[in-house]
Amino acid sequence: MDLLSIKDPSFLKKLSNEELEDLASDIRHFLIEKLSVTGGHIGPNLGVVELTIALHKSFDSPTDKILWDVGHQSYVHKILTGRASQFDTLRKYKGLCGFPKMIESPHDVWETGHSSTSLSGAMGMVIARDIKKENSHVIPVIGDGALTGGMALEALNHIGHEQKNMIVVLNDNEMSIAPNVGALHNVLGRLRTAGKYQWAKDELEAFLKKIPAVGGKIASTAERLKDSLKYLLVSGVFFEELGFTYLGPIDGHNYEELFENINYAKKTEGPVLLHVITKKGKGYEPAERDTVGTWHGTGPYKTETGDFLKPVNTAPAWSKLVSETVRELAREDERIVAITPAMPVGSKLEGFASEFPDRMFDVGIAEQHAATVAAGLATQGMKPFLAIYSTFLQRAYDQMVHDIARQNLNVFIGIDRAGLVGADGETHQGVFDIAFLRHLPNMVLMMPKDENEGRHMTYTAIQYNDGPIAMRFPRGNGLGVEIDEKMEALPIGSWEVLKEGKDAAILTFGTTIPMAMEAASLLEAKGYSVKVVNARFIKPLDETMLHDILSMNMPILTVEEAVLQGGFGSAVLEFAHDYQYHHAKVDRMGIPDHFIEHGSVDKLLEEIDLTSEEIVKRMSRLAEKKQKRA
Amino acid sequence: MDLLSIKDPSFLKKLSNEELEDLASDIRHFLIEKLSVTGGHIGPNLGVVELTIALHKSFDSPTDKILWDVGHQSYVHKILTGRASQFDTLRKYKGLCGFPKMIESPHDVWETGHSSTSLSGAMGMVIARDIKKENSHVIPVIGDGALTGGMALEALNHIGHEQKNMIVVLNDNEMSIAPNVGALHNVLGRLRTAGKYQWAKDELEAFLKKIPAVGGKIASTAERLKDSLKYLLVSGVFFEELGFTYLGPIDGHNYEELFENINYAKKTEGPVLLHVITKKGKGYEPAERDTVGTWHGTGPYKTETGDFLKPVNTAPAWSKLVSETVRELAREDERIVAITPAMPVGSKLEGFASEFPDRMFDVGIAEQHAATVAAGLATQGMKPFLAIYSTFLQRAYDQMVHDIARQNLNVFIGIDRAGLVGADGETHQGVFDIAFLRHLPNMVLMMPKDENEGRHMTYTAIQYNDGPIAMRFPRGNGLGVEIDEKMEALPIGSWEVLKEGKDAAILTFGTTIPMAMEAASLLEAKGYSVKVVNARFIKPLDETMLHDILSMNMPILTVEEAVLQGGFGSAVLEFAHDYQYHHAKVDRMGIPDHFIEHGSVDKLLEEIDLTSEEIVKRMSRLAEKKQKRA
Repeated sequence: MDLLSIKDPSFLKKLSNEELEDLASDIRHFLIEKLSVTGGHIGPNLGVVELTIALHKSFDSPTDKILWDVGHQSYVHKILTGRASQFDTLRKYKGLCGFPKMIESPHDVWETGHSSTSLSGAMGMVIARDIKKENSHVIPVIGDGALTGGMALEALNHIGHEQKNMIVVLNDNEMSIAPNVGALHNVLGRLRTAGKYQWAKDELEAFLKKIPAVGGKIASTAERLKDSLKYLLVSGVFFEELGFTYLGPIDGHNYEELFENINYAKKTEGPVLLHVITKKGKGYEPAERDTVGTWHGTGPYKTETGDFLKPVNTAPAWSKLVSETVRELAREDERIVAITPAMPVGSKLEGFASEFPDRMFDVGIAEQHAATVAAGLATQGMKPFLAIYSTFLQRAYDQMVHDIARQNLNVFIGIDRAGLVGADGETHQGVFDIAFLRHLPNMVLMMPKDENEGRHMTYTAIQYNDGPIAMRFPRGNGLGVEIDEKMEALPIGSWEVLKEGKDAAILTFGTTIPMAMEAASLLEAKGYSVKVVNARFIKPLDETMLHDILSMNMPILTVEEAVLQGGFGSAVLEFAHDYQYHHAKVDRMGIPDHFIEHGSVDKLLEEIDLTSEEIVKRMSRLAEKKQKRA
Repeated sequence: MDLLSIKDPSFLKKLSNEELEDLASDIRHFLIEKLSVTGGHIGPNLGVVELTIALHKSFDSPTDKILWDVGHQSYVHKILTGRASQFDTLRKYKGLCGFPKMIESPHDVWETGHSSTSLSGAMGMVIARDIKKENSHVIPVIGDGALTGGMALEALNHIGHEQKNMIVVLNDNEMSIAPNVGALHNVLGRLRTAGKYQWAKDELEAFLKKIPAVGGKIASTAERLKDSLKYLLVSGVFFEELGFTYLGPIDGHNYEELFENINYAKKTEGPVLLHVITKKGKGYEPAERDTVGTWHGTGPYKTETGDFLKPVNTAPAWSKLVSETVRELAREDERIVAITPAMPVGSKLEGFASEFPDRMFDVGIAEQHAATVAAGLATQGMKPFLAIYSTFLQRAYDQMVHDIARQNLNVFIGIDRAGLVGADGETHQGVFDIAFLRHLPNMVLMMPKDENEGRHMTYTAIQYNDGPIAMRFPRGNGLGVEIDEKMEALPIGSWEVLKEGKDAAILTFGTTIPMAMEAASLLEAKGYSVKVVNARFIKPLDETMLHDILSMNMPILTVEEAVLQGGFGSAVLEFAHDYQYHHAKVDRMGIPDHFIEHGSVDKLLEEIDLTSEEIVKRMSRLAEKKQKRA
């Protein structure tokens, strides 16, 4: 059918299962085609085509509320709710968001991006529904990977306790972003191999009829045996113990099974767990074959072959550079242990894992646990490398405060994807890390200007033994600079002058250094002599250099790809006033006080005036006034 | 025995069970006596006397590592490791800490305060042990309440998966801080009532022998029945499913049972869960009788009667004032729903709960879930009141960012125990909240000067419908001011001039207002006319008033009971420089860049120079220079 003509999911009600099969096929072709151009989360979406269709046919969205945990699997939902025509703009600036977004559609009732939030959100919704005495279904759809996240487990516990009506769909695709880890995964694995529950129940009932009655005591034990039938064969016990009615396992690509179980769930009192087995990448052979997560989220590819269109940039990817440097150092330093919360591929830790299988731990989607495992390691004299994305480190803030910084433990936190990340948008921008780490006592925070300095900094972090040390680095690739053979430790809190100048100073670090250098050249041409400093230590500051600059009365512009409030620029302001440079002219550039949507990083930087042109403008203003005064 | 003579736990090895009984009795008397003077966590410690003795007799601390989750139950451990003589200084400045503290003793291998961290810390320790090929036991001791915390569940999952040797002691006292909630608690409840495992196993084996062999299929089912014996009777299934060897339930006040099971655990490969049942307050009748948590942590009391020595302050407690105001408003506003993560008593929500049982949810120790349930409620037009301590809100930082602020939802966050909390010390000081909330887009953050303004602000927060709004308020009691009959909404971002002045301005809020007023009087006497502003909105700032003050070139001193880096003072600095008041003289007072230990709040404020004397000193410096220039 013509997917572009879909306005809302009501048309599904009239379709037969055969027609739904055709629709699923059309949607798969559409997705494979569209995403080959834009890139996106192809694997997860191909896996939930029938599930999404079945949910929208069975329920009345948005009265009934479907919450997509993590949210990158919501493309089929977007097609069925009238957004097929926008797929050419997927994840582009002002285009269709890659995650559920309330402003896009009333069918997006809950926004996601980070994992494991849907059950808690759904709990809030069912409480509201029951207080308002309304009738509606609330249906969080959560993957088996997201289920290992602490807040999802907290929510399961509470939902099971409260016994309110809710239909939790467990989308079990055997692989979240990386092959799943954790005992919970083992439980799900047993469920998967246990076959159909109904069959098991029949067999057991037949068996139990043959048990002879031998006195009251045994009879009562037999009763208990009967109660626990489910435990024996399908181990749905895990969820049943928590208070859920367990239904499954259900073939998530079979409409008959889906409808039968969904309808049963709709009539069930209390919380239901619908265990649906799906296959990531279903219907597209290159994605189906994937076992490590390559097809989880991709850039453009050739539809016929599944070959990825190579990106032009051949400089080393930051993730790989850092992880491989840690691997190199781990050969000489047995204290080094790598920890990742479900991101071994994204963090490029495959090499480390294969060389040091006993010193690498993927703990699943469990950022809090990951951080505190690192703390535990550090108490024993080890040197943990916590590889974590900036946006996900937000989940481990209290662990940074309470377990790592407060105990002053030697943990090396590699903050990947720091700064703007582009297409993933609001939920994934790594812009808060400076503001939420800088105020922690004992914390060292740094950012390298290029991949060569990144290697020296990694070395610095490993050598450092006075407490936690964090290095933020951006998404994407380095600059392609030459790499020094030997790594050396940088003095903690030391900045580097990149260009001398006397009229004013730009203090910046990491990704914003090139625009600062460009601006300095432009200013030079205008007759302003501008000093550019690589302020690579965000904490502690280079106090000597700052005293020099401030005592010379040079106007200062700080530039950072991070939120302005409480950021690096604020640290400079604090320093200036703490040392009573009350006449200091300090101006700050960075991320303003609103959430930054999706789009290319360049486009976003332009939108928020984080550009060399703006630097020129600000510096001219600062420097002009100085000259007027002079 | 003379507890003061204990140097380390090695003496325990030689004692008989009878002698250990005597020791337990001595320890109980000691604790009841000492804590009647100092106050402290009496209930939890009386509950773990035998358990602690048994662990220290069975293991070789500190080679074997005992980790006390939450840590307030470590008093017996402190006595057995040579610190009995310090109990007169418990929780006092420079005295014995109420939590494990590495600098106090090598037996304190892991510092706690916040709950649910011990399993992750222990996981780091066993990984380190195995890499270093050392032999030692690692024994986290975690309560049933702490087990509902997301990070503990993340850890259970990972520990079960890795199958490394670890002995997890589940100290199940049926009541964490408040009566426990959650499905997990139900599971534990079933374990508790199931009786002894060994007995159950015997009974079932006898029963199974009577099952006739009726063909291969049934026989194999019988085999499976046998495997699942444990499931049937004691439901240890929950932990067994996760990969643990489950031992229990064990009477935690019976040495024979304790030693038998601990010894079995020591010989078991892989992770073991030792399920120990204890009674909070054991051996002290007033504490044993407690069902709501009154005897969890207390101030001084009369040992004979258990009567609490009434505190002198009769002004309303902040927690009660806020919760009761919300309750009052809830009578007229059906949107209001209260959420607490296991702190219904601490947050004084008992009244709300009894009047609105369907609109009050204690979600257990689960701060992340609590915050996002509030977000879910807000999507449905409800007005959730999230009652949470400042220090525990740290656990929900990402939920503040990703679920509440980003979706711009109408959640009222009541931040209790903001600022210094005193005796609980480092882990519990509520000093980071401004720094970790101020940089969040859409967030309104305020703090009242007294309980009357607290009521108006609570009303303001309930009326506000433009996104999240947080009100921080201190531990302890208000000032005893008169309460207005009618509540009125304050204009968002409006400050209040408490005292006019022309030479300089003090901008402050909440608890530091009285010292500012006192300082202003002292300065007035010296001839300086100082303006004092109640900067009750920390975000957004009162821009009009700030422009006025800055354009008059008045020196500014900001004073806050919160960390300086990225705090309110930094917001003022940011504002001044964003609007190019580059000559602004701004000085900041607040919490310096180190963790603040335990002690009385007054003593701590003095130690960090957050006093009226310091205000006078700083203002004199700022104002003098101005006068020189004038």
